[in-house]
Amino acid sequence: MHAPEKLECPSLFESRWVDLPEAVEVLDPNTLPQGFRAGGVAAGIKPSGKVDFGIIVSDADETTSAARFTISSAPAAPVQVCRTRVDLDQMRAVVVNSGNANAATGPFGRDNAFYMQGAGAMACGVPENRVGVASTGVIGQQLSTRALTKGAQLVSRELKADNALSFAEAICTTDLWIKAATLKLELSGGPVVLSGQAKGAGMIAPLHAPHATLLAFIETDAKITSAQADALLGTAVTQSFDRVTVDAQLSTNDSVFLMAGGQSGVEVAPGSDDEAKLAEALNALLKGLAISLVRDGEGADRIGRITVTGGDQALCEKTARAIADSPLVKTALNGGDPNWGRIMQAAGMALATGQPEGIDIDIEGVSVATFGIRNDFDQAALEEAVSGREVEYAVSIPGEGHEATVYFSDLGHAYVTLNAEYTT
Amino acid sequence: MHAPEKLECPSLFESRWVDLPEAVEVLDPNTLPQGFRAGGVAAGIKPSGKVDFGIIVSDADETTSAARFTISSAPAAPVQVCRTRVDLDQMRAVVVNSGNANAATGPFGRDNAFYMQGAGAMACGVPENRVGVASTGVIGQQLSTRALTKGAQLVSRELKADNALSFAEAICTTDLWIKAATLKLELSGGPVVLSGQAKGAGMIAPLHAPHATLLAFIETDAKITSAQADALLGTAVTQSFDRVTVDAQLSTNDSVFLMAGGQSGVEVAPGSDDEAKLAEALNALLKGLAISLVRDGEGADRIGRITVTGGDQALCEKTARAIADSPLVKTALNGGDPNWGRIMQAAGMALATGQPEGIDIDIEGVSVATFGIRNDFDQAALEEAVSGREVEYAVSIPGEGHEATVYFSDLGHAYVTLNAEYTT
Repeated sequence: MHAPEKLECPSLFESRWVDLPEAVEVLDPNTLPQGFRAGGVAAGIKPSGKVDFGIIVSDADETTSAARFTISSAPAAPVQVCRTRVDLDQMRAVVVNSGNANAATGPFGRDNAFYMQGAGAMACGVPENRVGVASTGVIGQQLSTRALTKGAQLVSRELKADNALSFAEAICTTDLWIKAATLKLELSGGPVVLSGQAKGAGMIAPLHAPHATLLAFIETDAKITSAQADALLGTAVTQSFDRVTVDAQLSTNDSVFLMAGGQSGVEVAPGSDDEAKLAEALNALLKGLAISLVRDGEGADRIGRITVTGGDQALCEKTARAIADSPLVKTALNGGDPNWGRIMQAAGMALATGQPEGIDIDIEGVSVATFGIRNDFDQAALEEAVSGREVEYAVSIPGEGHEATVYFSDLGHAYVTLNAEYTT
Repeated sequence: MHAPEKLECPSLFESRWVDLPEAVEVLDPNTLPQGFRAGGVAAGIKPSGKVDFGIIVSDADETTSAARFTISSAPAAPVQVCRTRVDLDQMRAVVVNSGNANAATGPFGRDNAFYMQGAGAMACGVPENRVGVASTGVIGQQLSTRALTKGAQLVSRELKADNALSFAEAICTTDLWIKAATLKLELSGGPVVLSGQAKGAGMIAPLHAPHATLLAFIETDAKITSAQADALLGTAVTQSFDRVTVDAQLSTNDSVFLMAGGQSGVEVAPGSDDEAKLAEALNALLKGLAISLVRDGEGADRIGRITVTGGDQALCEKTARAIADSPLVKTALNGGDPNWGRIMQAAGMALATGQPEGIDIDIEGVSVATFGIRNDFDQAALEEAVSGREVEYAVSIPGEGHEATVYFSDLGHAYVTLNAEYTT
């Protein structure tokens, strides 16, 4: 709603934290896999008049799919409709709006989500039960069926191959840039294409569970079963969207969709090397999207990566998230302040044994504390190290053999301005 | 360190959320109960040269006491010393510094805390094992023994009855005002006096456990056993300091001390009406201190109270804390934005069932949502209602019979400025 006039789509693969597999080629992010069409239009849902309605559709009847949704107890109407009235293993299309979350809207809201599903089905010529629905925007307002009708009519004429960015822009809310990428990889049976579009910005939290966060749409022309789609998506989500936090807030609308149309004709056998390659590319794509979401976290300036190692997986997770979600750590990151004491404090809070524990802290390779005690280190070098756009923190808690990583945005004035001054 | 030149000590009992028992009289906050002396001086620990070293002492040998400490796994050196080298049930004095937390300082830090305990013991003529130690300020820097010596020498000449505010000011860090109050209450055996001094501002989180948060010092001239002191303090902390959050961050240094000198000669029998009256006054005092801490939360402007009712205590607690700690709710509170959708989102996140649950939301008595669905309400009236200094939120989750309340500060630019730009 407050997005600038013209959104760009920067590369997802410039972060040192995203490893692109060697055999993968990065294509124009506007490119869609064979058999997919997409489009985005202005339906009048956003008061700004910007694009706010989109459809992505697979033209192949044999399309397989998988999805993940928020675990919120206040799920938005479109999430409820997806869970109850969509064949999630054979979706062929998703219809999306931005500017209105259709959440906390009750029976009328569900009715609007059904209406939206139907309008989307007509717009792209796919049976209703194979059309997913997603919304993002303000909570607690009813969607206008007039706007939904207008959006569906307009977008039906705009659905095109190689039109991913128009769709990707239509899902944006407070996003400052479009998150989208398209990858090509060679499998034994030939090349396949994989593309993804996502939006985020606020209400982003890690879940550490096979449940989705945010809105993301993944398409491929590889031929896989719905069971493969589900397994591949579940693993990739756990390693990407579940590993990021902007403000520790789980949304009412988080949804991730994967559709595989098979139009490349390249079959990917379960358990094959090809499947492993596809998984690797999918993981890189989702991780790239996830880190771009963090970088574009509401008001974000710098982003951090915290890796905690120790003897207990749950404690590593808890400690990593305590650090990533600490407003004290996040404001220090924003200010370029090497305030490792706040990391020690957050780790101490997470462990909560009451007794001193052997906690080690490294920041960008500088060992600042060992066994809970400050080391002698070069303060100037540390200050220089935390002044970059990406800062790496490593914390060691007692024991070994387990590890948890979380990517997080900083907390600056822009977050406060955006969230104190607007109803988003 | 960044405190203004002259700190005031506003009344703790103006909040509508603090009920002062009828029989209680509010005295000058500088007044200490009979037999107590206190003082605060500038020892040179704070670079600003402001007061930063204090002692509070009970002159009665028969003094009983109790204490609560942080459950952090990175406890500061003074906390470690209190736990291992202080007779916590018969403390007669506490020596405190601000400007340096003596945390993450290892064996040297512990040695400094021992030194500080010894210097304090000499300054007030009390055996070392009866002297508690507390510190607050920057993490990871060694205290100067020279400053500790200077502080102890200076303060030994300043220990006076009716000198509570000098001590209360010496414990402040980013606090904008002094938190202190003195109450007088009539018991069957005569009047007793109860006083308290606290500091807070940042790293404040609720714990819901008999463990302390922040720094607080409570004194009384009532005659009670150490078992009574422990029980009374534990209950009062659970209903006050454990119910507030500024930034959800548990400190390395949180400590609460209660000393009862008995110099009023008024014995309070266990289980008596007098004990109930004393408990009631103590609870009001700690709640007043706790709410004042929230109001003075770093950069705080408005404060909120969230009460969650439902069928499960743990879920009520989890939901109340999710709302109180949500940066989206806190920024909306700061902006005077009646953004109830974010309360719904936070409650949905806390319950995390994935299915719609019957969540009701009231803001200042306006019923904004019932069973997860927005109600028709007067938006202008709601906006007016959230523009005050204190805002009340009530949330109902499924079931009944349980309740949890948390007091929280907002999140505004001042918090970011303070924490991004200074090492605190």
